[in-house]
Amino acid sequence: MAFAKIVVLNGPNLNLLGSREPGVYGSKSLADIEVDLRNRAGGRVELEFRQSNHEGDLVTYVQEAGLAGSGVILNAGAYTHTSIAIADAIKASKAVVVEVHLSNVHARESFRHHSYLSPVCKGVIAGFGDNSYHLALEALLTG
Amino acid sequence: MAFAKIVVLNGPNLNLLGSREPGVYGSKSLADIEVDLRNRAGGRVELEFRQSNHEGDLVTYVQEAGLAGSGVILNAGAYTHTSIAIADAIKASKAVVVEVHLSNVHARESFRHHSYLSPVCKGVIAGFGDNSYHLALEALLTG
Amino acid sequence: MAFAKIVVLNGPNLNLLGSREPGVYGSKSLADIEVDLRNRAGGRVELEFRQSNHEGDLVTYVQEAGLAGSGVILNAGAYTHTSIAIADAIKASKAVVVEVHLSNVHARESFRHHSYLSPVCKGVIAGFGDNSYHLALEALLTG
Amino acid sequence: MAFAKIVVLNGPNLNLLGSREPGVYGSKSLADIEVDLRNRAGGRVELEFRQSNHEGDLVTYVQEAGLAGSGVILNAGAYTHTSIAIADAIKASKAVVVEVHLSNVHARESFRHHSYLSPVCKGVIAGFGDNSYHLALEALLTG
Amino acid sequence: MAFAKIVVLNGPNLNLLGSREPGVYGSKSLADIEVDLRNRAGGRVELEFRQSNHEGDLVTYVQEAGLAGSGVILNAGAYTHTSIAIADAIKASKAVVVEVHLSNVHARESFRHHSYLSPVCKGVIAGFGDNSYHLALEALLTG
Amino acid sequence: MAFAKIVVLNGPNLNLLGSREPGVYGSKSLADIEVDLRNRAGGRVELEFRQSNHEGDLVTYVQEAGLAGSGVILNAGAYTHTSIAIADAIKASKAVVVEVHLSNVHARESFRHHSYLSPVCKGVIAGFGDNSYHLALEALLTG
Amino acid sequence: MAFAKIVVLNGPNLNLLGSREPGVYGSKSLADIEVDLRNRAGGRVELEFRQSNHEGDLVTYVQEAGLAGSGVILNAGAYTHTSIAIADAIKASKAVVVEVHLSNVHARESFRHHSYLSPVCKGVIAGFGDNSYHLALEALLTG
Amino acid sequence: MAFAKIVVLNGPNLNLLGSREPGVYGSKSLADIEVDLRNRAGGRVELEFRQSNHEGDLVTYVQEAGLAGSGVILNAGAYTHTSIAIADAIKASKAVVVEVHLSNVHARESFRHHSYLSPVCKGVIAGFGDNSYHLALEALLTG
Amino acid sequence: MAFAKIVVLNGPNLNLLGSREPGVYGSKSLADIEVDLRNRAGGRVELEFRQSNHEGDLVTYVQEAGLAGSGVILNAGAYTHTSIAIADAIKASKAVVVEVHLSNVHARESFRHHSYLSPVCKGVIAGFGDNSYHLALEALLTG
Amino acid sequence: MAFAKIVVLNGPNLNLLGSREPGVYGSKSLADIEVDLRNRAGGRVELEFRQSNHEGDLVTYVQEAGLAGSGVILNAGAYTHTSIAIADAIKASKAVVVEVHLSNVHARESFRHHSYLSPVCKGVIAGFGDNSYHLALEALLTG
Amino acid sequence: MAFAKIVVLNGPNLNLLGSREPGVYGSKSLADIEVDLRNRAGGRVELEFRQSNHEGDLVTYVQEAGLAGSGVILNAGAYTHTSIAIADAIKASKAVVVEVHLSNVHARESFRHHSYLSPVCKGVIAGFGDNSYHLALEALLTG
Amino acid sequence: MAFAKIVVLNGPNLNLLGSREPGVYGSKSLADIEVDLRNRAGGRVELEFRQSNHEGDLVTYVQEAGLAGSGVILNAGAYTHTSIAIADAIKASKAVVVEVHLSNVHARESFRHHSYLSPVCKGVIAGFGDNSYHLALEALLTG
Repeated sequence: MAFAKIVVLNGPNLNLLGSREPGVYGSKSLADIEVDLRNRAGGRVELEFRQSNHEGDLVTYVQEAGLAGSGVILNAGAYTHTSIAIADAIKASKAVVVEVHLSNVHARESFRHHSYLSPVCKGVIAGFGDNSYHLALEALLTG
Repeated sequence: MAFAKIVVLNGPNLNLLGSREPGVYGSKSLADIEVDLRNRAGGRVELEFRQSNHEGDLVTYVQEAGLAGSGVILNAGAYTHTSIAIADAIKASKAVVVEVHLSNVHARESFRHHSYLSPVCKGVIAGFGDNSYHLALEALLTG
Repeated sequence: MAFAKIVVLNGPNLNLLGSREPGVYGSKSLADIEVDLRNRAGGRVELEFRQSNHEGDLVTYVQEAGLAGSGVILNAGAYTHTSIAIADAIKASKAVVVEVHLSNVHARESFRHHSYLSPVCKGVIAGFGDNSYHLALEALLTG
Repeated sequence: MAFAKIVVLNGPNLNLLGSREPGVYGSKSLADIEVDLRNRAGGRVELEFRQSNHEGDLVTYVQEAGLAGSGVILNAGAYTHTSIAIADAIKASKAVVVEVHLSNVHARESFRHHSYLSPVCKGVIAGFGDNSYHLALEALLTG
Repeated sequence: MAFAKIVVLNGPNLNLLGSREPGVYGSKSLADIEVDLRNRAGGRVELEFRQSNHEGDLVTYVQEAGLAGSGVILNAGAYTHTSIAIADAIKASKAVVVEVHLSNVHARESFRHHSYLSPVCKGVIAGFGDNSYHLALEALLTG
Repeated sequence: MAFAKIVVLNGPNLNLLGSREPGVYGSKSLADIEVDLRNRAGGRVELEFRQSNHEGDLVTYVQEAGLAGSGVILNAGAYTHTSIAIADAIKASKAVVVEVHLSNVHARESFRHHSYLSPVCKGVIAGFGDNSYHLALEALLTG
Repeated sequence: MAFAKIVVLNGPNLNLLGSREPGVYGSKSLADIEVDLRNRAGGRVELEFRQSNHEGDLVTYVQEAGLAGSGVILNAGAYTHTSIAIADAIKASKAVVVEVHLSNVHARESFRHHSYLSPVCKGVIAGFGDNSYHLALEALLTG
Repeated sequence: MAFAKIVVLNGPNLNLLGSREPGVYGSKSLADIEVDLRNRAGGRVELEFRQSNHEGDLVTYVQEAGLAGSGVILNAGAYTHTSIAIADAIKASKAVVVEVHLSNVHARESFRHHSYLSPVCKGVIAGFGDNSYHLALEALLTG
Repeated sequence: MAFAKIVVLNGPNLNLLGSREPGVYGSKSLADIEVDLRNRAGGRVELEFRQSNHEGDLVTYVQEAGLAGSGVILNAGAYTHTSIAIADAIKASKAVVVEVHLSNVHARESFRHHSYLSPVCKGVIAGFGDNSYHLALEALLTG
Repeated sequence: MAFAKIVVLNGPNLNLLGSREPGVYGSKSLADIEVDLRNRAGGRVELEFRQSNHEGDLVTYVQEAGLAGSGVILNAGAYTHTSIAIADAIKASKAVVVEVHLSNVHARESFRHHSYLSPVCKGVIAGFGDNSYHLALEALLTG
Repeated sequence: MAFAKIVVLNGPNLNLLGSREPGVYGSKSLADIEVDLRNRAGGRVELEFRQSNHEGDLVTYVQEAGLAGSGVILNAGAYTHTSIAIADAIKASKAVVVEVHLSNVHARESFRHHSYLSPVCKGVIAGFGDNSYHLALEALLTG
Repeated sequence: MAFAKIVVLNGPNLNLLGSREPGVYGSKSLADIEVDLRNRAGGRVELEFRQSNHEGDLVTYVQEAGLAGSGVILNAGAYTHTSIAIADAIKASKAVVVEVHLSNVHARESFRHHSYLSPVCKGVIAGFGDNSYHLALEALLTG
């Protein structure tokens, strides 16, 4: 797959990264992650970052990315575990999505062990802090 | 029941109808369905169409319809299976709602077999493609 | 689909309609429903009504209808929730079946929320009283 | 065990064998299976074939076979998964029963994975098409 | 309640009483039980005994008794645990039913611990052998 | 079984009978029930009545009755559903116990559908109001 | 804890208070509750009221309150039972939140018995009608 | 509701308050809580404190309070999660009860998340340390 | 750990040891066990034996032992499986408790496989008859 | 299917056959079964017997048989119920496998009712003692 | 029981004892435990120690010990919770086994609360560190 | 983390890669993956490849890698879902492990959705074919 653009979608509470439980989520802000990932991408692909606390926005962003043929790096936060609507958006728009998580969700509360999104994503990368985004970028560019 | 207006509410990803998995959802767009249903209604009742990817919007639309005494044809898409808020809106506003689905949800993934909405709706019609909307219209007009 | 005949199958206890819990099931007898539905059908299609309290009879009736290429309107009553045999009959005979219920089964006891039949039916219509039969007829004639 | 007679009992929808989903159940009719099995049995044992779509008939047939001391080859179809009554008939009449299935029920829907009959049968043979009947015959004659 | 007639309904496999697992069910046949119970009733009430291995027959018998205003002593055997149809018949016909069991079903297999019938019966008597029928008779005559 | 004495044990909140939810439990007090039951027993057997709100007391009372060879009529109230200790007391003392309930527990909250006591009792009688005690007395005297 | 400001957050359908099922939720509107609570607070603390039908808005409002060091009185309505995102917002922003409910949620449908929010709130107050808000205010001011 | 007396009932292990896991339950003894609460009540209402480690005592205390028309503040400790008998006492005696907990039970072991008492109490207050008792007092006096 | 005193607590029905199901529990009475264990202890530690059929008594006895710094050998009988209150007493009083069972509880009914006490005890010894007490004594004296 | 070789694989503890619970597994040793089965096979097919207590060995043996195109008779013993690895080996190597059991596993402990292997095997034969192997041989040679 | 030899079997990861999570498992190596246990045994019985990370080896070791009439002290580590094969080996070889655990498994992850082995062992000793082995030795020598 | 060596561990059936279900697992053999990964690693780190069908071997390999301070890339195949022993080895040896899967396990059978290993691994990468190994290598080298 060759993508002209990769959209990095972040869900609820990820706007607080850096200040939010640094022991779990690391000390980098979402802006820091964006800078680092743009550096990593270099000229290889166009990147777009979008964040929202609204499930409905994520549905729309996934639709737009999928219909435009962009790759998607998706950290849906808590909606990972509750949103059939985002999963439907992935299927409906035929988006190619890599699901990422900063933390190892499987080592946390049991309600974070199930993802509605995983079955319709290309793959899942979890537990590597902000490096999860870098690995997802490589996965989309070299997969 | 005689309704001056019937509001047709469509939930997440239904804006993609026609392009989304045509084998499951048919090849008609939501606009096509609107045209057909307006033809079917003829002069018998006023129709209003609203679509949103946001659960909160659907809560609001149901409230407005219910308080106005309009009948509701509701295809809540994925929120059918996860939204207690929309169910509460139906009860709170005393809306008369017919739940519709294009596909036979009972022949699909198990998480689509349960609906939070069905117990508070007047009835359910599922599996007849866009004809589900026509049958719902008849159900409201002749029920 | 164009059907030369549509068979209306009613399962256990539906012979008591009219006298049975009118608050739930309405005051029309099964004979009343037959008269109304024949009026509704007019000359569009031949109708046949069959009722039995026996699961095995319903298996046989579905087989006969399916093999004859007739459409089926099926209110299997309590067997909806317990009979794999009727579901197998639908699959085995390739019958085109619309599942109907007078009451909104999803608003009643939890053991009425699961249907073995729904996954092998074309669609489901529930909650509209005897109008459910009329809507099912339209679904088969116009679907 | 030496049996003067072996009764081959077939349950609901097995009267459709040959026409019913040949990919799953094979192309032989129940009559074909009877002919083949009579050939296989030769003069070794008397065979009787009975089929019914009624659970109650199967209860009665099992009782009669058990009380007469006949061996039983039982393909109860869908009642395998729902009938405590047939299981009770096996226990009550002390019938020696081999449960057979044409298809490998464990590779199909999860509701076909549990059998009320297996715990009270001598043994189970599943997945070999009509050969399952032949193997069951050998199991009764040589066991 | 004063009943002109009490119908004693027995379900599947109870025709084998006396020969069936006497350690569990006792050594009296169903005919013996009938004689004893008629003696017990004396001239106080008319008694009618009916037995069937068919769920559908029990549905019909309950309907007939309920509509006639007769009291019912019901030992539904295995259908106790699987039949919503019989439970619906009790509700639909407003039959006054005492559920009886010869054995203490709660001391047996776990699938015998749940009864679909109990919630719609007047009461339940289990574990007293054929005396369960006598106690049920008293319950109906003196309740 | 012939008993010199039958002990009638009543558990928590049964001291409130008559004032407690008369629609569910009837208007007779426990003292009324005692008088009626003594009348019923006549000279056939000695009766002893004991009531306690303490699970431990019921354990002790069951032990004493069982070791003395008395029959027991036991309405353990809420402890029916939570007390393994009383069940153990029945087994440990080899008490012959008839479990009774005024109301039809199976028609009430789901947590009242399971009894730890039933599997170790001789039998169960539920749903006949204070007549449940009378039937239990007969069951012990005539069983 | 001393708070300069307390934010009162109300979730979906609470905008209908007063007209919505008064038997369950009382006859006061949300504006009435605001007036009463401002009277109760007097000069002790600044109060801010916000309502939304959107889960994403509640995520944002909780974040803002938490980061500003305001106390929060949160009636999340139906989102109480489905939203991990709001729970994450409470943890991420270190908001001090008192969860309130007008009705006794434990006496209603079983899906209202579980709260994703309770484990991350300081405490829970439910069942006292609009007095729940007053008690929550005292809890935050005197805790 | 106006109460002449409010009874404060404390269940098992609450006699150890102050020494028991102060991190969870605070450093005040039950006597300290009584002094503080009497100060809070002032002359507004008579207060009575009772504590027991016995489920049966709590059943009795609730009965006495309910029948006397007293309000009840009930911290049933571990019996909250296991006692149907106390719940029945509340219903049987028509006691008006506020369930309180020192700790936020929803943030602890899963077996503390379910309460048999909550559905029959007026309301629940949990997580505010000994302030939970003060809030409960206000709830009863001002509700 | 060095204990000046070890308290041996026995729960419901253990007062019947010797007469109760000797095949399961052995033929020694509780008094026999006490004599043997005192012999075993010799002068190494003071022993105290207490038995009760009341859960509340066991709560109190555990509290007293724990607060006095005594070790505890606890056979809580049926309360092992139902009592959160005793578990709380162990935690609240910081008692060092060895849970013992005469029989191998894991080889018996499934409701005996779970213990509320085990997670708060130092260890568990089950299945060695009265030798379980001896081993527990050694565990406390040499651990 | 025509096989040049059939491999008979036996899993853990089957090396003890003959001495192990003869009432359940019969008195023949695995060597006896081999002799008998070689007699049965005669010159029709080459037979190879392998036994191991190691799951990993069974994975390897299945792979080797499947890749060589041999048929497989597999009695995986306890690994039947716990090994996804052996199931994967069957799928990965495209082995044609008949699952056999000496005993009727469905009449034993509930953890023996589920097989990871059945869904990927051609068929299952259980309950006929060592005759199960003979029937499996016929199934492979004549299927 | 008098044993000429006792075999001490240790399962996966117990070769790491001493270095592995000392807070949970203690600081003694398996060799240290062996030395201590040999000292404890003195001349009373021959001891043999075996360790393996392979489930299949443990199956074999149990078989050998059981057939030789040796007693077994078995710490199966993680296989305790997943191995039906080892449980079968105990039953098949009639080995007398004491199950031991260093840690209190019931105070750890829920998947460590169930043991396939316990029901077929003589008894269980858990939570006493390496003293668990000493107690098991005494249990076998004095039981 | 800087690793001198990274060990790539492959579990059961991965020796068949290339020939095994290429649609699911790709057409590269394990040797191909090794060559590619060595090219990718270049001189950055020493690589060692080990494969086994034995759970016990994987336990040992993980222990060795962990104790040597090597990083681990672990594709445990089917043991991912059944092995607590491998998870314990990771914890016991403090190995830093990245769990990888070729396929998206969450889009396959439900028994592949749970991993015993994920909670004790650093992170998880699944669904990218052999690229999963490359991403894991980068995760270990750059994490």
